[in-house]
Amino acid sequence: MPEKVNLAEKFSRFTDHWSPKLVGELNDFHVKLVKLKGEFVWHHHAEEDELFLVVRGRLLIKLRDQEIWLREGEFVIIPHGVEHLPVAPEEAHVLLVEPQTTLNTGNVHSERTIEHLERL
Amino acid sequence: MPEKVNLAEKFSRFTDHWSPKLVGELNDFHVKLVKLKGEFVWHHHAEEDELFLVVRGRLLIKLRDQEIWLREGEFVIIPHGVEHLPVAPEEAHVLLVEPQTTLNTGNVHSERTIEHLERL
Repeated sequence: MPEKVNLAEKFSRFTDHWSPKLVGELNDFHVKLVKLKGEFVWHHHAEEDELFLVVRGRLLIKLRDQEIWLREGEFVIIPHGVEHLPVAPEEAHVLLVEPQTTLNTGNVHSERTIEHLERL
Repeated sequence: MPEKVNLAEKFSRFTDHWSPKLVGELNDFHVKLVKLKGEFVWHHHAEEDELFLVVRGRLLIKLRDQEIWLREGEFVIIPHGVEHLPVAPEEAHVLLVEPQTTLNTGNVHSERTIEHLERL
């Protein structure tokens, strides 16, 4: 039975940063919500394109040769293979759409890697 | 080179209803924007799950045994095989995420079927 998802309500259920929560599955894709604050790690995804939609706040996505600022109601798709570094000067609320196989840190395994996603 | 998409700016570029515009591609998925007003046609998608996120206004998605009202900041994923009828009492602005193979009218071919998507 399909159930609707209210983004604000889902975001109110967690406070941790850089830990994506699963909120939807469609075919082999996942929809995730994540709160970002500070700087992440440079990484890329070997196979997976990744959509970042800013729901609240602002987000800087650094590429090796470009900087992309996203504000509320803006998204960007980072193609697979493209190195990127998300930076949130203040807390940002972000919706992600990406293949199920996507690991948050991509090709980099570190203490920031989240192997198992919580479902909200 | 990744380019950001501002949803409001993209929605300002068209006025027609029930005609999804392509605004992003990630792996084998499409991101589309569509303006809805009135009632569509009952249909289902044989293979494709479909995400509806309301960006402005409100949207009723009728299922055969359930009605789902979506307001701004709410989404639902309609699994493949589930018959649905989108209804927008007033104009609604909706973001869609779905496999590239998704036809707007699913299993039903009618004068409302859009075979070739415009890219914004």
